[in-house]
Amino acid sequence: MRFSSTTTSPDGTIERDFTHDGVPGVLWTPPGDPAGLVLSAHGGGQHKRAARTVDRAHRCTAAGLAVITLDSPAHGDRPRTTEDDRYITEIRAALARGRDASAILAEYNALQATRAIPEWRSLLDALPDLGDHVGFWGTSMGSAIGIPLVAREPRVDTAVFGLIGATDALVTAARAITVPVRFLLQWDDRLVGRDAGLALFDAFAAPGKSLHANPGGHGDVPEHELDAAVAFLAR
Amino acid sequence: MRFSSTTTSPDGTIERDFTHDGVPGVLWTPPGDPAGLVLSAHGGGQHKRAARTVDRAHRCTAAGLAVITLDSPAHGDRPRTTEDDRYITEIRAALARGRDASAILAEYNALQATRAIPEWRSLLDALPDLGDHVGFWGTSMGSAIGIPLVAREPRVDTAVFGLIGATDALVTAARAITVPVRFLLQWDDRLVGRDAGLALFDAFAAPGKSLHANPGGHGDVPEHELDAAVAFLAR
Repeated sequence: MRFSSTTTSPDGTIERDFTHDGVPGVLWTPPGDPAGLVLSAHGGGQHKRAARTVDRAHRCTAAGLAVITLDSPAHGDRPRTTEDDRYITEIRAALARGRDASAILAEYNALQATRAIPEWRSLLDALPDLGDHVGFWGTSMGSAIGIPLVAREPRVDTAVFGLIGATDALVTAARAITVPVRFLLQWDDRLVGRDAGLALFDAFAAPGKSLHANPGGHGDVPEHELDAAVAFLAR
Repeated sequence: MRFSSTTTSPDGTIERDFTHDGVPGVLWTPPGDPAGLVLSAHGGGQHKRAARTVDRAHRCTAAGLAVITLDSPAHGDRPRTTEDDRYITEIRAALARGRDASAILAEYNALQATRAIPEWRSLLDALPDLGDHVGFWGTSMGSAIGIPLVAREPRVDTAVFGLIGATDALVTAARAITVPVRFLLQWDDRLVGRDAGLALFDAFAAPGKSLHANPGGHGDVPEHELDAAVAFLAR
């Protein structure tokens, strides 16, 4: 990991930009010894410093957790391939026409997972000790990456997933996850059908899984669920 | 309300038995001024001092909430009619044979609601001021009573329901409820089908509704959901 700029906020939280194997990311550490580390994966079209990513980091550091995030492949400061451009054009066109984009989204998400999982695992190898446990928090495309990552990564002991529906590959990965899982669904999500979301929740092998569903669309997860997710990751 | 015995616990919580219009109940008040009052309705086959009712009361008083509960009709210290005996015999027989008891349970629950709702409303008329707001907490038969109660009772401003599936009457009542609702389902509940439970959650008009589903059977709501329900009622 190569760290570049460092910012310290008035409450003592330290925010550091870094690159690892050419992938840019941000590490936030709370004042004092962190109680744990959260791997935070952003959603599709977002990036390491998108408003939601930063908000999530601040909620976690306020609870004593360190947070690390990466730009996903083809997102943020990372280059796109012609394959990315083709997918993004197709996805935007489907959404603009009000068509069901779930199949093309699932296909692009699966590609993202194969690219991002080795990056997250390599980052875990390089990281200093940041507390007693490692959680994962990523919804939508962040879950498309996180579910197969957590399925094969024994260092992650808690996970917040959601805003994603079942595919064969995700169901297979979910069946291998036994650590506690919080699964968030939005009841009126036009990108994720209720049945597909519920089927993926059903697949987790975790005895300590909880489904939390709230009214509203894909981007409308209520504040109280964000706070509850932090408490879930912090305990 | 006629109060009889009073018990004060070491932490300062006061527990008082009472009868109101011939219905026995218990009132728990925390030390100091209560932040609010929770109407706590027990499930079928339980009573005002069943272990779960008392556990719920202690969790609420620890959060500064007063709690009041009644024996439901034909439960606890209250007499049964021959109609009750007939229903209870039929329900037990269905459950013992592993048959689907949802229709007979729904029918008995509807009878319970018509009897219990006037009792709760009369109790609210008689109660002293116990904080700034009134919540309701009842699952299973407690929700069969509570959903139509809260639908027509403007004094209740927050509600925890669950462990119950849609019937025409409950869906109609849920469509009239706009206060914040926490709805608990058990993912492997043999008394409540998933689709029936999800359909009832769907019916609530409350913009601030949340579904929390966890693995396990009807009686296996995890501790963390009980704590989360208290926090939901306390805010």
